[in-house]
Amino acid sequence: MASDYVPPVDDYRFLFGEAFGVDLPARSTGGAFTAEDATEIVAGAGEFAASVLAPLETIGDREGARLEDGQVRLPAGFTEAYQAFVEAGWVSAEAPESAGGDGLPGSIRAGLGEIWNASNAAFALCWLLTAGQIHALDAVASDEIRETYLTRLVSGEWTGTMNLTEPDAGTDLGAIRTIATPRPDGSWGVSGQKIFITWGDHDVAENIVHLVLARTPDAPAGAKGLSLFVVPKFLPDTSGAPGERNAVTTVALEHKLGIHGSPTCVLAYEDATGYLVGEVGGGLAGMFVMMNSARAGMGFQATGISDRAYQQAVAYAGDRRQGAVLDRPAGAPIAEHPDVRRLLLSMQSRLFAMRALGVYVGDLFDRAATDGTGALAEFFVPILKGWATEDAVALTSDAIQVHGGMGFIEETGVAQHYRDARIMPIYEGTTAIQSNDLIGRKVIRDGGATAETLFALIGENVETLRGLEHEVAARTADRLERAVDAARRATASLLGFGMTRNAYGVSVPYLMLLGTLAGGWMHGLAVAAVLAHATPDAADAARLVSADFYGAHHLPRVHMLAETVAAGEVA
Amino acid sequence: MASDYVPPVDDYRFLFGEAFGVDLPARSTGGAFTAEDATEIVAGAGEFAASVLAPLETIGDREGARLEDGQVRLPAGFTEAYQAFVEAGWVSAEAPESAGGDGLPGSIRAGLGEIWNASNAAFALCWLLTAGQIHALDAVASDEIRETYLTRLVSGEWTGTMNLTEPDAGTDLGAIRTIATPRPDGSWGVSGQKIFITWGDHDVAENIVHLVLARTPDAPAGAKGLSLFVVPKFLPDTSGAPGERNAVTTVALEHKLGIHGSPTCVLAYEDATGYLVGEVGGGLAGMFVMMNSARAGMGFQATGISDRAYQQAVAYAGDRRQGAVLDRPAGAPIAEHPDVRRLLLSMQSRLFAMRALGVYVGDLFDRAATDGTGALAEFFVPILKGWATEDAVALTSDAIQVHGGMGFIEETGVAQHYRDARIMPIYEGTTAIQSNDLIGRKVIRDGGATAETLFALIGENVETLRGLEHEVAARTADRLERAVDAARRATASLLGFGMTRNAYGVSVPYLMLLGTLAGGWMHGLAVAAVLAHATPDAADAARLVSADFYGAHHLPRVHMLAETVAAGEVA
Repeated sequence: MASDYVPPVDDYRFLFGEAFGVDLPARSTGGAFTAEDATEIVAGAGEFAASVLAPLETIGDREGARLEDGQVRLPAGFTEAYQAFVEAGWVSAEAPESAGGDGLPGSIRAGLGEIWNASNAAFALCWLLTAGQIHALDAVASDEIRETYLTRLVSGEWTGTMNLTEPDAGTDLGAIRTIATPRPDGSWGVSGQKIFITWGDHDVAENIVHLVLARTPDAPAGAKGLSLFVVPKFLPDTSGAPGERNAVTTVALEHKLGIHGSPTCVLAYEDATGYLVGEVGGGLAGMFVMMNSARAGMGFQATGISDRAYQQAVAYAGDRRQGAVLDRPAGAPIAEHPDVRRLLLSMQSRLFAMRALGVYVGDLFDRAATDGTGALAEFFVPILKGWATEDAVALTSDAIQVHGGMGFIEETGVAQHYRDARIMPIYEGTTAIQSNDLIGRKVIRDGGATAETLFALIGENVETLRGLEHEVAARTADRLERAVDAARRATASLLGFGMTRNAYGVSVPYLMLLGTLAGGWMHGLAVAAVLAHATPDAADAARLVSADFYGAHHLPRVHMLAETVAAGEVA
Repeated sequence: MASDYVPPVDDYRFLFGEAFGVDLPARSTGGAFTAEDATEIVAGAGEFAASVLAPLETIGDREGARLEDGQVRLPAGFTEAYQAFVEAGWVSAEAPESAGGDGLPGSIRAGLGEIWNASNAAFALCWLLTAGQIHALDAVASDEIRETYLTRLVSGEWTGTMNLTEPDAGTDLGAIRTIATPRPDGSWGVSGQKIFITWGDHDVAENIVHLVLARTPDAPAGAKGLSLFVVPKFLPDTSGAPGERNAVTTVALEHKLGIHGSPTCVLAYEDATGYLVGEVGGGLAGMFVMMNSARAGMGFQATGISDRAYQQAVAYAGDRRQGAVLDRPAGAPIAEHPDVRRLLLSMQSRLFAMRALGVYVGDLFDRAATDGTGALAEFFVPILKGWATEDAVALTSDAIQVHGGMGFIEETGVAQHYRDARIMPIYEGTTAIQSNDLIGRKVIRDGGATAETLFALIGENVETLRGLEHEVAARTADRLERAVDAARRATASLLGFGMTRNAYGVSVPYLMLLGTLAGGWMHGLAVAAVLAHATPDAADAARLVSADFYGAHHLPRVHMLAETVAAGEVA
């Protein structure tokens, strides 16, 4: 059984209002939402998640989704949970005002994203895909499609899916073969097979909107020939209510390592009725909006699954007693054993780093519209997605290790997080895809200018830390300074390689280097914020230990990776 | 489905006869077995494993072991495979001559251990535990027990188990509560509950010999009060044939993350008849022989599971085509994509390192009896167990990544290796237990003398490499020299800490540092051996790339870990 879920409200209070030296929500909404409001929203979400979504996590894993007579059924409780989620307004909380949503700032939405995923990652995928489609349609859809589809996605009446992958077109979207043929009435007939479609069918809402990349007749080869279509499961009648069944069927449901509660479908489109979104041949523009949203969402999922695994490890280690503990009184729990403590701190310090970076990136996207930080925001998307998901896999493995032999027993529940986590570095673009995006579009193309912006920001934090006269601040400053030096050297190596195999052969190590560095920076900011307190409390002291641990155990990875990057492809 | 299994015969030929600059089997057997003999034995084992054991791996995972009316049943085919394994002589191949076995040198047994585990890790556990019990009984049992039990274990008629863990006594053996009470006839009545008993019951052989740690009445508290007993499932009759059912029952079978084909039992002993092995109160002596054997065995299991995952990744990446590959002709498989190539080399270079270290350690134990390398052999047991199993988990994760989305689908088969691998850093002593053994008994106790022996050996390799005038040799020498410097600094840090929380808080990083370094050394030896060839072939070239890759991607971890070790416990 998964353990109870306790939402990390204090961390979010700290991140919204203190860690970045400013009230993030207030800055990006002109005071409409303050850090205190944001904390309340996150606390409310946490309460809902803990009471409604978390209890379904184990049942989702054990029962899984089932395909019965062409209809996917979710385990008992999922439909009620989804309806409660909608009624509580958590779908519209994700949507921008332009789409009729609440227009919450990105920092808050980062917190919500974590919480849905922590309490029930399989369930959260339904929300995550719908949210991504909301952002995509809001960016590129016509008024007609907005009215029929977007409004019903925002209200939560309908859910959304993302249809890219085909058996021979995964990473390579240019190979997509699904065809959309224009019809006299302005609709399109969509035919082809899509695989790995998350929440591609289900019974928790009345309709499903598939956002489908397809090729039009006579379209040019490759990605430029792709257009985007909405293909509803049920065709809306004249009132907009779900009517006739469309010609899209679920031909199979995958049997997966994890996220069993999330139905992964093979969908067959047989002259299904679709409607064009955006321009013919401009399909990638809308899909990129959805992908960017989903990729950032993966950062929040990584944080969420990590927190759940961490909480379960903490609960076990605090409860379990085994053997005498060095320098601790008799009866001390295993959490006090030096190596169990190391594992817990290793998990917690990584978790804080990814959580903080998620909030930071969410906020950056708000600022991008006004203060020119757009390049930095885009820069961080592949880093957050790639680094946080890879680290989350390692972190869930640590959670098993804390449990010893019990960790390998499925009833304990911690193995589920390990199984669930493993898909994250793969879907929404593998870590290699993220790293190629990073080095190609975001480092080499601008000659390292955006990377240098980041390094300069970290340099400012180093200066601040140096002025604080505290041993943890001093150590953190030294470590960050050396790490930034290594990152500059690695960036120079990469720029020297140019877009060659030497660069692509070390793109993942480079991405992990920047993620690890960014995590250290988040801790550096936390140290500075904590030391501004006149009378530090126990939570403050814990933040200093966490930062110091990250600096001793995780940040040195930057040096290892810089050496790897410098070597280029080994041939 | 797991892929076909191809035994790594060429690697073993190289390791037996070339890599260490000497014919290992010939040296340790006075010429009774040469490297060529050894290679033939391994090839024969590989053929058997590929044809008989490997085909059962998937069925073992899917069907798993079942508990029916108190009797554990294995999936179809396991009994026939076990009988074929016995008839082919593979159980007696593990046993020393003193126990009536073949007396194969440790280097060959390392190869066999890998092969059984690669082809079917769940099946191999039956062999691994039986082998461990053979070594334990051979070391400490009376003639009577040797005659009744040891001979039948060596013949393969009966199998063995290892009974340590209880619900409140896992890592802490001193907390064992199972009681053995002496009876007038010289036997003992054993009562208690043991958990996590691998192959604790099954139907593939006619009898099972449980080797049980239990407390005798009035025994002192803690580990010194423990004695060792053999408790057979069926009591041998006067002819030694399995007779009356003993009072040991399987009360439950665990539902695990992996190794489903290996039954993990909860055993209840209710005044079961047992026979004392060794002295009263001397139970740990015999159990330590079994544990040492099982721990080294885990190194071979780590190598085996890693190779199987690697082979599956290679097969997929060589077959799958997706998108254009930079600087490669059209239609190149994804194995040629720079990051897929990186993943494959990352796996292969780690795999070679652990395989080579397994052979080296197997050989060290042979030499220990004659040339005083015993301390070094014992030094390497926790390193091989801890480092190889941790790396194997990472390696099986890489194998999933190579498959992209298909890696998450259970039918692909690669996820099984990832699930199976996760128990290895836990059972037979967690990585923390290995690292505490390493730093406490094997580094701090002798003031770092054995560690320095290792560093000096690596230094000799560095000198050899420097004399070879080849760029890979030169790079490898530089990298190894810097790595040894870092390892010396880390060892000095540890010795400075003494047996305090500062040392135990970084014991796992220290173990991983030494394992990573030892892996680099193995590659350094391989480079020297390859460059001695007058006309290097493609396999030689591949060994150089592998060593160079390990030096660029894995060996730098030593520097990261040295920084971590220097920090001590973060408090």
